[in-house]
Amino acid sequence: MNILIINSGSSSIKYQLIEMPLEKVVCEGLIERIGVGQDNSNFVYKPINGDEITIQGAIADHKEGLSLLVSHLFDEKVGVIAEKEDLKVIGHRVVHGGSAFNKAEIVTPEVKAEIKELFSLAPLHNPAHLLGIEVCEDLFPQAKQVVVFDTVFHQTMPAKAYKYALPKKLAEEKKIRVYGFHGTSHKYVSEKANEFLGTTTTKLVTLHIGNGASVSAVQNGLCVDHSMGFSPTTGLAMGTRTGDIDPAVIVHLVKNLGYSGQEVSDLINKQSGMLGMTGYSDFRDLVNQSKSGNKECTEALELYAYRVKKYIGAYAAAMNGLDAIVFTAGAGENCIEIRDLVCKDLEYLGIEIDKDLNNQRPKQLTEIQVKNAKVKIFIIPTNEELEIAKQSFNLV
Amino acid sequence: MNILIINSGSSSIKYQLIEMPLEKVVCEGLIERIGVGQDNSNFVYKPINGDEITIQGAIADHKEGLSLLVSHLFDEKVGVIAEKEDLKVIGHRVVHGGSAFNKAEIVTPEVKAEIKELFSLAPLHNPAHLLGIEVCEDLFPQAKQVVVFDTVFHQTMPAKAYKYALPKKLAEEKKIRVYGFHGTSHKYVSEKANEFLGTTTTKLVTLHIGNGASVSAVQNGLCVDHSMGFSPTTGLAMGTRTGDIDPAVIVHLVKNLGYSGQEVSDLINKQSGMLGMTGYSDFRDLVNQSKSGNKECTEALELYAYRVKKYIGAYAAAMNGLDAIVFTAGAGENCIEIRDLVCKDLEYLGIEIDKDLNNQRPKQLTEIQVKNAKVKIFIIPTNEELEIAKQSFNLV
Repeated sequence: MNILIINSGSSSIKYQLIEMPLEKVVCEGLIERIGVGQDNSNFVYKPINGDEITIQGAIADHKEGLSLLVSHLFDEKVGVIAEKEDLKVIGHRVVHGGSAFNKAEIVTPEVKAEIKELFSLAPLHNPAHLLGIEVCEDLFPQAKQVVVFDTVFHQTMPAKAYKYALPKKLAEEKKIRVYGFHGTSHKYVSEKANEFLGTTTTKLVTLHIGNGASVSAVQNGLCVDHSMGFSPTTGLAMGTRTGDIDPAVIVHLVKNLGYSGQEVSDLINKQSGMLGMTGYSDFRDLVNQSKSGNKECTEALELYAYRVKKYIGAYAAAMNGLDAIVFTAGAGENCIEIRDLVCKDLEYLGIEIDKDLNNQRPKQLTEIQVKNAKVKIFIIPTNEELEIAKQSFNLV
Repeated sequence: MNILIINSGSSSIKYQLIEMPLEKVVCEGLIERIGVGQDNSNFVYKPINGDEITIQGAIADHKEGLSLLVSHLFDEKVGVIAEKEDLKVIGHRVVHGGSAFNKAEIVTPEVKAEIKELFSLAPLHNPAHLLGIEVCEDLFPQAKQVVVFDTVFHQTMPAKAYKYALPKKLAEEKKIRVYGFHGTSHKYVSEKANEFLGTTTTKLVTLHIGNGASVSAVQNGLCVDHSMGFSPTTGLAMGTRTGDIDPAVIVHLVKNLGYSGQEVSDLINKQSGMLGMTGYSDFRDLVNQSKSGNKECTEALELYAYRVKKYIGAYAAAMNGLDAIVFTAGAGENCIEIRDLVCKDLEYLGIEIDKDLNNQRPKQLTEIQVKNAKVKIFIIPTNEELEIAKQSFNLV
């Protein structure tokens, strides 16, 4: 069964067509810079057994972009699906499922209404997701639409982990709590780790370190704690986000320094993190700069890794144990230096990295701890699209 | 040598007269509800070898309050100092020393100017401290005034611990960083622990758990990390403060829910924490309620202890080891249930509490771990006044 995976953002759409249960990618691509004007949009279509096709031009909206995809998917020459009827399932990534969803769902008017309800909690993501869903309903009326939420994996957290120490009434009425993000990735890699370990009776810390970055504590296959919170701003320091910061700093900026809500939001989400500290947000640049003697970059990397370390320690305490830590996503899979910095000086917790084994960017699950170390250290390439395909397949 | 210790707040002054280096309290007391109007103020004077004297009435300002103290201190009958000249040193507690002070200081016009500079960072505390200093300069012209800052102990933190991932320019110009608080207490108890252990080559986590609450990581006698930050709002959940919370919650309250800066400040400092979650802010009430079946209180206590646990784990990771944890301050010294909840299920870190030994409220350093546990668990009554006296004595 072919499942089309759609990750619809405000000005871009990523897609993959995956044959299930074979887990085989049939084609993939993206539609970029939608609606930004003449000649600037970009359509990329790459069938697994054919050449990549790129079209540059103007793509006015999501419908125009996805229509281009339709015309390629079913095309006689470059297409990968013979009949429209053969595409029966479309799986949509949805960042925010609030507390309303604790599993993937088939799209109904009620599900759409709930996604809309959550616009205020995920203003950059949920509106774009809903748009993608509605365009797909229109273009693929024969297919079942499935939504897979990033937040769902974190719904198993206990109250002591997901609650803030806020007035009860405010927290409940305004739905202010820890939701957690990157859940599809944390679920995917934690399941891979458990598969490898041959048991789900495990205590894992999964480190999703990309441009955004988060940590999950996963005990017996269930998320029990997570570093992101009400929003994806908090937790680890990130490319452009502050991560954890005293809330009184925000109050100080608003109350005493004249910042508006929007200005503070931009500050902590777009101008902070590694970028704000150094001028660089990409780990490759940070590492290269640090190697060339840029002390700010060295300091920023140390701060970055130090915070990851503290989350590992905190979650080892939360679970009263630790069987493995998992590195995944962009920098987690590819940044040798970050893995090294994070794992350094954690012998007390049973973490000892093997420098030689760490010196790689593997394409599959790889162990990089020293022999006989108490805690395993895995690199596991994440695959959120595949996880969405799996959940969609299981649902329909 | 007699040293008068002054802790001057906005509407109250606490004081102790301590004979150094004997560390003997000669008299103590407080002046409460200053300037609130007729008959509501309260002056308490308790000489160690005499009866407590209480005066109720109107105390208009700090000068009137401290003048009352003068008239008692040197009184023929109830006084404890024969001559004004015999009071040579006054040690003042100052909450915020910013980055300007890394040790106690004798008051000079420059020191006062710097304390004033820091008003915006500690609006509730530093103005009241400066007032206390100036009144004492006036009333005790013969004495040297010394200031001991709560923040000083935390000045040894490395950049990776004290920096936020904010734009460099903003952080530097606006002095936004982790300062840390309760430093005088953390210093006092960590030194007591090291004294007992017979070495300063130690890795300690000190838990100051009162109405405000904070955690320090103390390695080789120096603070290397701390749970409070730019302000005393962050870190552990507290009586009325949120502790750690996603900064985006504050942005959401301001940007989308119409809160003013002042309203958010009141919310996260005065209406949150245990009080906001349950209606109770005192641990005795929380424990009693929980025992009587109040589930909200049980849940709040679990959240409270869970956060302490995570800080212990984080700091064990930060120091790559842990020799002892120290409980101090109101609940730390007296709340058996909180100590129990915090230490439960931390065997992985080497923490095992002895339930029987824990069942006490000792007046001096007491060990409460099980025999042969890897990590020692201490209860150490804090004594900030004595610590201020020590530092003042050493300085003059």
